[in-house]
Amino acid sequence: MGTRRNDPDRRDRIIDAALEVIAADGVAGTSHRRVAARAGVPLGSMTYHFTGMDQLLHESLTRFATRVSDRFEQRLASAGAPAEVADAVVELILQDVFDDPDSLVVTLELYTLAARRPEFRDLTHDWMARSRASLERHLPPSTARQLDALIEGLSIHHALDPGPYTRALVRAAVERVIAVPTGA
Amino acid sequence: MGTRRNDPDRRDRIIDAALEVIAADGVAGTSHRRVAARAGVPLGSMTYHFTGMDQLLHESLTRFATRVSDRFEQRLASAGAPAEVADAVVELILQDVFDDPDSLVVTLELYTLAARRPEFRDLTHDWMARSRASLERHLPPSTARQLDALIEGLSIHHALDPGPYTRALVRAAVERVIAVPTGA
Repeated sequence: MGTRRNDPDRRDRIIDAALEVIAADGVAGTSHRRVAARAGVPLGSMTYHFTGMDQLLHESLTRFATRVSDRFEQRLASAGAPAEVADAVVELILQDVFDDPDSLVVTLELYTLAARRPEFRDLTHDWMARSRASLERHLPPSTARQLDALIEGLSIHHALDPGPYTRALVRAAVERVIAVPTGA
Repeated sequence: MGTRRNDPDRRDRIIDAALEVIAADGVAGTSHRRVAARAGVPLGSMTYHFTGMDQLLHESLTRFATRVSDRFEQRLASAGAPAEVADAVVELILQDVFDDPDSLVVTLELYTLAARRPEFRDLTHDWMARSRASLERHLPPSTARQLDALIEGLSIHHALDPGPYTRALVRAAVERVIAVPTGA
């Protein structure tokens, strides 16, 4: 862990800047030099605050996943009856990804990194576990898992090809997975 | 389009080599130099056969998507009753992605490219359209769309975090989406 003794804002700013660089140039294009320039800090700050690029990637992508998870949890927190859970999930799929193209790009960058390098897979595990936990407050565990995967697929398909994925269709899919209780 | 007059194998080899480089180094790390070295062709062949990197990316990712689509179609072609469709879809999710880690990585690279650059989105549109068409031979159009998104999400979640996604759970999710007829 880097130290926050001298300039906590600077370290935070570097993490946010890294996310912006990942969105713009991808993980592969993210260098200490680019992040430092974006954050407006001297290059030496990078090695002072982070042990290396992997630590910076890990912390910035953790911040991103936590932010998306928070929103996911908040949307679901106010839902009560199953119909309200369905409402919340439909809005998650149609709005949260759609309104922020960077979010889709950074998510896919994270998945690609996790697929390539298992040492980053704790990020995707933790994110998925947290989504499931949010859903499990309203639904049986097996349904929560199924629904979480459905949300993933519908979000990606809707973002890349919105035409076939109307609100009615998304809603129908969510209801099918939510509605039927099963012991699976 | 490049010409195939002199050495059809060479052009094909370059396209396959590009896919290997994308799997190893990502789209961002794919250069004419690396692809030429992988294919065992002189650097000059690259500009002879392709107008530029975008054309090479487009053709190689089209080949990849066509290959995955072919397998998808073949798995479904032999299915008859809905239970057989469910069987085929479960195998698609649990085996086809899992057996070939490169396939997950290249898929995510393609999605990221399409998310960043709309001029590559015809690739994801065509791929999704073909998957839907394969499913529509067995299912109503709305169900085919829902199921295609579910397959996407389950494949990604299973590949990145297989633990929670047992065969029984995947099967239950697929059956929920397939089973209930609706007018949505």
